[in-house]
Amino acid sequence: MTNERVYLYDTTLRDGAQTQGVDFSVSDKTKIADRLDSLGIDYIEGGWPGANPTDDAFFATKPQLEHSRLTAFGMTRRPGRSAENDPGLNALFNCGATAICMVGKAWDFQVKVALGIAATENLDMISDSIGLASKRVSETLFDAEHFFDGYKADSDYAMACLDAAYQNGARWIVLCDTNGGTLPDEVSYIVEAVRDHIPGEHIGVHFHDDTGNAVANSLAAVRAGARHVQGTMNGLGERCGNANLISLMPTLALKMGYQCGPGKDGLKDLTPTAHLIDELLNRAPNRGAPYVGAAAFAHKGGLHVAGVRKNPRCYEHIEPDIVGNVRQIVVSDQSGRANILTRLENLGIDVPKDHPKIPRLLEAVKDLEFEGSSFDGADASFELLARRILGTVPEFLKVNSYRVLIERRYNALGKLITVSEATVKVEIRGEERISVAEGNGPVDALTHALRKDLGEYARFLDDWRLVDYKVRIVTPNDGTRAVTRVMIESADGRADPWITVGLSPNIVDASFNALLDSITYKLLRDGAPSA
Amino acid sequence: MTNERVYLYDTTLRDGAQTQGVDFSVSDKTKIADRLDSLGIDYIEGGWPGANPTDDAFFATKPQLEHSRLTAFGMTRRPGRSAENDPGLNALFNCGATAICMVGKAWDFQVKVALGIAATENLDMISDSIGLASKRVSETLFDAEHFFDGYKADSDYAMACLDAAYQNGARWIVLCDTNGGTLPDEVSYIVEAVRDHIPGEHIGVHFHDDTGNAVANSLAAVRAGARHVQGTMNGLGERCGNANLISLMPTLALKMGYQCGPGKDGLKDLTPTAHLIDELLNRAPNRGAPYVGAAAFAHKGGLHVAGVRKNPRCYEHIEPDIVGNVRQIVVSDQSGRANILTRLENLGIDVPKDHPKIPRLLEAVKDLEFEGSSFDGADASFELLARRILGTVPEFLKVNSYRVLIERRYNALGKLITVSEATVKVEIRGEERISVAEGNGPVDALTHALRKDLGEYARFLDDWRLVDYKVRIVTPNDGTRAVTRVMIESADGRADPWITVGLSPNIVDASFNALLDSITYKLLRDGAPSA
Repeated sequence: MTNERVYLYDTTLRDGAQTQGVDFSVSDKTKIADRLDSLGIDYIEGGWPGANPTDDAFFATKPQLEHSRLTAFGMTRRPGRSAENDPGLNALFNCGATAICMVGKAWDFQVKVALGIAATENLDMISDSIGLASKRVSETLFDAEHFFDGYKADSDYAMACLDAAYQNGARWIVLCDTNGGTLPDEVSYIVEAVRDHIPGEHIGVHFHDDTGNAVANSLAAVRAGARHVQGTMNGLGERCGNANLISLMPTLALKMGYQCGPGKDGLKDLTPTAHLIDELLNRAPNRGAPYVGAAAFAHKGGLHVAGVRKNPRCYEHIEPDIVGNVRQIVVSDQSGRANILTRLENLGIDVPKDHPKIPRLLEAVKDLEFEGSSFDGADASFELLARRILGTVPEFLKVNSYRVLIERRYNALGKLITVSEATVKVEIRGEERISVAEGNGPVDALTHALRKDLGEYARFLDDWRLVDYKVRIVTPNDGTRAVTRVMIESADGRADPWITVGLSPNIVDASFNALLDSITYKLLRDGAPSA
Repeated sequence: MTNERVYLYDTTLRDGAQTQGVDFSVSDKTKIADRLDSLGIDYIEGGWPGANPTDDAFFATKPQLEHSRLTAFGMTRRPGRSAENDPGLNALFNCGATAICMVGKAWDFQVKVALGIAATENLDMISDSIGLASKRVSETLFDAEHFFDGYKADSDYAMACLDAAYQNGARWIVLCDTNGGTLPDEVSYIVEAVRDHIPGEHIGVHFHDDTGNAVANSLAAVRAGARHVQGTMNGLGERCGNANLISLMPTLALKMGYQCGPGKDGLKDLTPTAHLIDELLNRAPNRGAPYVGAAAFAHKGGLHVAGVRKNPRCYEHIEPDIVGNVRQIVVSDQSGRANILTRLENLGIDVPKDHPKIPRLLEAVKDLEFEGSSFDGADASFELLARRILGTVPEFLKVNSYRVLIERRYNALGKLITVSEATVKVEIRGEERISVAEGNGPVDALTHALRKDLGEYARFLDDWRLVDYKVRIVTPNDGTRAVTRVMIESADGRADPWITVGLSPNIVDASFNALLDSITYKLLRDGAPSA
């Protein structure tokens, strides 16, 4: 076990955005960058300035990062143009990033076929662009596109490309397996060969998972001396994805003894981080993901369960809580009670360890999670559930019934229109109030109707607003009969936003449950009087 | 490139059945075994006779395999019992399998903690059981459980366990990384060390994916001389899964030159096989799966698309059709005319490059994507849009109006209930049909009402079903007024599933749009007559 440093470079916001079906908003990018920063990732590639409006808007927000270097991605200058007059390069220099990663070709075939230029012109493009960048920004990296294929085709030329970048001031020379077809043994001998020219402390690698070896290739490269690894959260990326940094971090830190990312103690953040990314993208988390998947420490077979109960080492390669995950055993587990107590403590709910209602709360959480709820992100709903069971939530309002009508038809002008109308009956201090409202959709109509006449509580909801609304199908294979989980993020501009969860086979009902929890939580946090 | 033989051993039907949420029926097992047989897998582990009724029933069907050896899995004899009188062993010998794979411990810690017996007794259990099996069945294999952890803890004892099996007639000595924590470099040196005792032609390996290295470990073992690899289809298996044979086969055959499984020419069957397994398990296929995933040869970025059009080698490590997959040019934000044309070509829509409607189609895609739609993934909706603009979609049915009522109230027993009811008016050949139905939620009710009375089209929808339903809020910061995108995946069990997209500020309306597109696409693909 060594104790050397390996630098991590996350490209979720650029290469990860190439994943089919992934479409980051500026606010998604900001949330992910903040999380990566607190995870201790060394470089966060924010995007490609000038390539699309979202990336420009993200850099324009001037992200404030504590630990990570905000990095902008771009290309070497165009053929036949000077680096000084290349608009692409200028966009890079002026975007406000602290580091710049520039991609250039390192495979003669690509230079001829994709670029259609002379091999020497490509070398000049690299030298000029890296040379200028090194003067204009504090740190420059060179992504050698198709390096491994290039090395196998013409190692002298591939090495000349690296030298052009290294000699002109690139801090890191990153060997990219752009097509993803390189195998670990090839990585080993090629990285070792590169070290004859460039010291390992300046060599980085970038792998894709087209043969299922992106993680293994990254490890082989580090073993061969590379000290910088590029990858993405959850292995996002085009085609089969990039090297998964979530899988790499614990292996590098725990099994190989490298200092990287959050360090050993910070690995607890990995499971929540993996889930956050999936939540933002509204993707179902991969249950079988190494280290962080819900099934990664699940034991189903009878023999295995018996072994694990004797000693978890029987069927677990590491302790799950090191990476923030939990053991899952079909029979009831001991960790539940401790988890709940920790959770209550974190929320500032002070209960003695032997509070008689703790077992009931534990059961309620298990039942709801079994049905598909998730208190992972929904702290406000968990707090409400806990306070209700512990007997400390005042009764504010009671919803006696609601009705929603959605109608699509042609109007008098022959235009197709859809209208949504909701009626809600609310009881406050024994008095029933009935309200009706229209909205853009059923949930919007319900929101308007619900807040329309809340009597003495209305003033507490003046600054209440919904900032995010997420829907997840918990049992997707049941088609439209599936159980739906709605998570609503609310804010009032004064304190942290809060998230509530609603669950039902009926999407409108699930939304309504989350909505009502959000209002109740707001009244609770503002100290509204009990009805 | 060598031309040696590597034997493949599939344990989908046993270890794969340990996957959370997987539950094979006898008929599933039969279908999978048939497919594995025609794929040229050497050994098919059918299950564990005596362990559960499904496995017994499967062996009782006496599966007829042409190429593969049907293998039964079991344990070495129990402590303190003779092999001859062990009921578990007798169940194995009598199940009709042509080969038997017996698992035994190879880690002193496990022998002490999990079994609680003396180290020598464990060696006797292996010798006795393998010795007897070698007399009773034509081929015996030994799965050395926890071998790699055992070797690291006490290599002499671990090797003694292997020797006990090898010297008593086991054809294959299989080194298992049961906990999944072993890394490729450890595999290399340990397999090499084992070869000092046992020839490589008798060494097999069995890996789990707990660090994301199951495939790389298998390759490292083969490189170190092992000639038998165990794994599962699509990497099914407990926790993070087993080594994925679907990923391993093309790498072994195409990149390392081994003879295995279907051979180079038979690799075309890989993509359909991967899909068949998912279909049987009703799981959404992993789009990013190496070689066989729908995104494995998908190109989204403008530069990559341009490169691939010049020469696919620019961004593809192999030709997709070698493994039965297809290239996909993703239509998205950045895509231009060239993408649209390639996409149409892939869909089999033959239009000249200068078709006058192409600019209109391009504009329509851009407008819809700007509003938040995504054709990246929704091939069926893209095809419908393209065919409509190019004027080739027959008019099947017209929805004149729909109405959905959702009501939550207390019933006569004081229980809170929610009901959803939908009414749909459909026009077919000028005749209006009105249908009403209830459902678990508004979309379910609409689905039932919509398909209830479709006259001549009803027969085309007999096998139509929704397999996935995804909701994404496109403008999340608008709260419940946000634009909602619904993506529906449908299947009919005959051809590939298809995905349609619907967009609206009203979630029910968006769902309805995707639903109607799905039905229209199904009628189109089945060649239903125009109304």
